Amino acid sequence: MDLLLLSNSVLPGTEYLEYALPLLKAQLGGRRKVVFIPFAGVTQSFDAYTDKVRLALAELDLSITGIHTVDDAPAAIAAAEIVMVGGGNTFNMLKNCRERGLIEPIRQAVNNGALYVGWSAGANLACPTIRTTNDMPIIDPGGLDALNLLPLQINPHFTNALPAGHQGETREQRIRELLVVAPELEVIGLPEGSWIAVQDGHAQLGGDKPALLFKASQPAITLAAGHHFF
Amino acid sequence: MDLLLLSNSVLPGTEYLEYALPLLKAQLGGRRKVVFIPFAGVTQSFDAYTDKVRLALAELDLSITGIHTVDDAPAAIAAAEIVMVGGGNTFNMLKNCRERGLIEPIRQAVNNGALYVGWSAGANLACPTIRTTNDMPIIDPGGLDALNLLPLQINPHFTNALPAGHQGETREQRIRELLVVAPELEVIGLPEGSWIAVQDGHAQLGGDKPALLFKASQPAITLAAGHHFF
Repeated sequence: MDLLLLSNSVLPGTEYLEYALPLLKAQLGGRRKVVFIPFAGVTQSFDAYTDKVRLALAELDLSITGIHTVDDAPAAIAAAEIVMVGGGNTFNMLKNCRERGLIEPIRQAVNNGALYVGWSAGANLACPTIRTTNDMPIIDPGGLDALNLLPLQINPHFTNALPAGHQGETREQRIRELLVVAPELEVIGLPEGSWIAVQDGHAQLGGDKPALLFKASQPAITLAAGHHFF
Repeated sequence: MDLLLLSNSVLPGTEYLEYALPLLKAQLGGRRKVVFIPFAGVTQSFDAYTDKVRLALAELDLSITGIHTVDDAPAAIAAAEIVMVGGGNTFNMLKNCRERGLIEPIRQAVNNGALYVGWSAGANLACPTIRTTNDMPIIDPGGLDALNLLPLQINPHFTNALPAGHQGETREQRIRELLVVAPELEVIGLPEGSWIAVQDGHAQLGGDKPALLFKASQPAITLAAGHHFF
């Protein structure tokens, strides 16, 4: 299994996906043929989203096909060397993937050796469920189960800060609610600028910040940068 | 229709539901018999949540029954003068209400003259759907449709601020995504400390802050404190 799961797409002061370029370079190997899944993009067209990613990754010399442009999407996924899933609204993404019958083809492609790259909502899709998304439920995804490529629930864009004076739940409080109704899950609070890379059966925390691991009925566990999950 | 829909439960420097006491007093009339719906409470027991509300509202001399304690919940709702729905996790609340067959009984009770009081998740439940909740989807609610007592989607705890340095979507960006996939909806960004009161066929914005009205393909409209919706 070969996964690159990024918390987010942009770091302050850098271009779109710029911080991901060296990570992608390191993990690509000889693979160049990408299907891009743009369905998390809601306020931009799927074409525009695909073009934006092409531009951001131009120096990698990839061949990027938007999955919305092909007639036989499962076949295109089966033939892909890289499955890339962009961020945006997780509910809209999962609904589209489910309705178009892409869940099982993506899982199979990755099990057969394709590299899975996802950021934000795309990182969530690789988890057992999307129950740790921060997004608004703008549409019913037809169930919360996702790809289950990784045995951890990523909470992307993790921060426990609230805007000054705000009375809403903190991120940890929200995750604690999840762990009451689903104590079998383990949740990684993945800060912006961090990622999880899975290669050769091992998973490592990337980036220069610690992440938090939340388990039911236990205090949060701090995972140092570079932590090996398994 | 008689509704009191509060953005949240606590204002800084005040006790739980303290700011709601004068509003409740003004809208109760002679009604005292309350069923309380505690299902949004996840990290506290339904008993503890009901007791907390009883304590907070003690000076109103209400008779408050937790709906989880009665054998025939639909009958208890039908006999209630006030249906009160507390905040917490909206998904857990809707799932429980749906599975226990309470959606239609609550709607009927309110149509028959019961006062509906909801805060945060409880305010969301009164809307056409829960698609404007801020909560984490910790459990599948079996569909996003809600009570539809008000023809507006409330976004509770509304703020467009992000924690410093955070790259996630603003609240307005999230609402804009909703309005792309559901342009028929109208969304009220209801700041903390504000509420919507519906009485005698009229709906008014309460509190001392403006709220924002979001419609598809239009800039946000500022609604002054005291605004009459209809």
